[in-house]
Amino acid sequence: MANNCTENPETTRQLIAQYLNSDAALQKVHDEFIENTLTNYYLPFAVAPNFLVNEELYALPMTIEESSVVAAASKAAKFWLTRGGFKTAVRGTEKVGQVHFMYFDEPKRLESFFKKVLPLFHEDSKTITQSMRKRGGGISAIELRNKTDELDGYYQLHCTFETLDAMGANFINSCLEQFAQTLKVEAGKQGISLEVIMSILSNYVPNCVAHAEVSCPIGEDGSKTTVSHEFAKRFVQAVAIAKSEPFRAVTHNKGIMNGIDALVLATGNDFRAVEAGVHAFAAKDGQYSSLTHAEIKEDHFTFWIDVPLALGTVGGLTSLHPLVKLALEILKNPTAKELMQLVAVAGLAQNFAALRSLVTTGIQKGHMKMHALNLLNQLGASEDEKVQLLEYFKAQTVSNAALKKQLAEIRNNK
Amino acid sequence: MANNCTENPETTRQLIAQYLNSDAALQKVHDEFIENTLTNYYLPFAVAPNFLVNEELYALPMTIEESSVVAAASKAAKFWLTRGGFKTAVRGTEKVGQVHFMYFDEPKRLESFFKKVLPLFHEDSKTITQSMRKRGGGISAIELRNKTDELDGYYQLHCTFETLDAMGANFINSCLEQFAQTLKVEAGKQGISLEVIMSILSNYVPNCVAHAEVSCPIGEDGSKTTVSHEFAKRFVQAVAIAKSEPFRAVTHNKGIMNGIDALVLATGNDFRAVEAGVHAFAAKDGQYSSLTHAEIKEDHFTFWIDVPLALGTVGGLTSLHPLVKLALEILKNPTAKELMQLVAVAGLAQNFAALRSLVTTGIQKGHMKMHALNLLNQLGASEDEKVQLLEYFKAQTVSNAALKKQLAEIRNNK
Repeated sequence: MANNCTENPETTRQLIAQYLNSDAALQKVHDEFIENTLTNYYLPFAVAPNFLVNEELYALPMTIEESSVVAAASKAAKFWLTRGGFKTAVRGTEKVGQVHFMYFDEPKRLESFFKKVLPLFHEDSKTITQSMRKRGGGISAIELRNKTDELDGYYQLHCTFETLDAMGANFINSCLEQFAQTLKVEAGKQGISLEVIMSILSNYVPNCVAHAEVSCPIGEDGSKTTVSHEFAKRFVQAVAIAKSEPFRAVTHNKGIMNGIDALVLATGNDFRAVEAGVHAFAAKDGQYSSLTHAEIKEDHFTFWIDVPLALGTVGGLTSLHPLVKLALEILKNPTAKELMQLVAVAGLAQNFAALRSLVTTGIQKGHMKMHALNLLNQLGASEDEKVQLLEYFKAQTVSNAALKKQLAEIRNNK
Repeated sequence: MANNCTENPETTRQLIAQYLNSDAALQKVHDEFIENTLTNYYLPFAVAPNFLVNEELYALPMTIEESSVVAAASKAAKFWLTRGGFKTAVRGTEKVGQVHFMYFDEPKRLESFFKKVLPLFHEDSKTITQSMRKRGGGISAIELRNKTDELDGYYQLHCTFETLDAMGANFINSCLEQFAQTLKVEAGKQGISLEVIMSILSNYVPNCVAHAEVSCPIGEDGSKTTVSHEFAKRFVQAVAIAKSEPFRAVTHNKGIMNGIDALVLATGNDFRAVEAGVHAFAAKDGQYSSLTHAEIKEDHFTFWIDVPLALGTVGGLTSLHPLVKLALEILKNPTAKELMQLVAVAGLAQNFAALRSLVTTGIQKGHMKMHALNLLNQLGASEDEKVQLLEYFKAQTVSNAALKKQLAEIRNNK
């Protein structure tokens, strides 16, 4: 790769080596996560303290490359620390998978065939489900769905699962492939002509949902236990806009995902799975809309989120990646249900911080202050210059142009 | 953090230190990407070779933690290498931002006010847009939109931008905050009563779209230049299912995002922004649906994707993260437009590989083979044991239970 794809193969080799871990055994573990690994890509692993969740204090480990996300989360946590903190709940833990197949004969014939075969789906997958059943999980239901209104000849086995502390992808896919096998064999035996197209879990989990909310009285400006009426009103308007306008909803929810993904990554979960499920959920009523909700009612301000999250705290990378283990320890080794709630909190906190900036000072002021160090590093500022410039820009609006100008000034005055 | 959140603070400190880079200056750059950084979180940085894109050969750098994604991408690349490769195009590069405000007076009065003020939006933001304009970008249009049908009193300045090789978030937000300022000041002067709620870019970019496709004749099974009719038929059916069924579409698109995000991460772009924009695009017609399309026409099989991608190859982390620089070099230092197309290719390749497995052998067979090393590491297998077991499972179905059993067997036979 260094020889074929880069100008200076030796420099490339050194760069790749610079990012390898000095502990060869540890490096091997990381190499083997996937195929063709060259080296380790760094994302910052940070922590956002002061989250009061259901009366218990948490620090949230966050893995993210974007400046100001961790600062915003920490700020939101501190804001709600004196206003009752976050309250959370789990609204369901149902996972979903489907066997998709084509059948062009009488629907009634298929239905009665399905009823006869149903016990066999459970029976034939017994060895796959054994250990999950022992722990109280397994297959919840297997349903035959006629989807021929959507696509000619299209039917499914729509299956639901309880996978406890595992995200469950491998478990579900293994079950489904067994169901497909049983379906084919039994159809063959009974002269039913059907064609299985594919068997695969769904990352759309509208019944695997975590709820998080914050709430406090409306009161005097400057109080540590209330929010002002003016702030609450503007905040509720901002949420109403995100509910009604997809162009805004997308970025509104993107901000939520800044918090959610940072925690999902830190805990070794699959952010593509979470992202896909969450955004489809945001579009479930026919128009893409806000995941959060806000209201003023009887002089109380309430802000909440309901978000589908299929997460695991066992399996996958959770026991392989040492920093994932650390992240889970920082979170007090949560169950999957507890993790769902903490992740929902991270999303709500992020959205609160973003909207608070947006409806008051605007987003750029805070963000550019946070981003200033990156810009200064890009400009090649020395440590001395960075200290001077960050001091100077405490009272000034940060922009790339302004930083450049001020840096030139410092250098000219030397 | 080590003292407050972990059982063995000393072990935690050692773990954190183990992940720090030995080069203090380099570590500092990574620390300063965000706030409260403790150490570096590793994601594997890998490469998928053999992508023929518009007659040119590429290797794609991929950053992802999920096993079998890079293997699948490489396999898809090799498959299409002898079948004409990938063809790509850019369908637009329009970025979007909005100033959201409330106005409860006569719409006509606002419209004529807007027409008068329009030149001032450009004038007042001149210093912000100067360097972008020099390079051929800048503000494309500023439009007043009446959204009162959706929300009482709600109007926007809907603004479009051309940000060239930058993703443009800071540029757009700075412009918008200036527009909001101008709007407020001019409304004040002319006795127009309006209230700006917020100013922010949109990550929904339905006119910033990359297209990628593969196509080949339908022919004999086993040929290196065609696909079989049976395969093409099942493949098209699988795509049709993803088009008609949201539960399937979510996971179908999740697979696409495995490829897209791996490249987005490696090139220092913001995957939350891309994810939000892509999934909203998938839901734009009122039902969440497939991002890819497939057809058989005149004995030709064609498979394609149109996907909104607001990406940058300058700014952000692109010049700060040494591995991002390497990733861009591996990609031949692309423009943003070129990167959009390569990312679309990664998404299409990933989806092709997933559907190919799904409609033929099923997903678990290949995936579990890839994932076997992780499972063996979890079970604490030695290097010797790993070699033996991987050899044994070449011909067997991999499952966690089977691996465990076989490992025990080896150990008992010692």
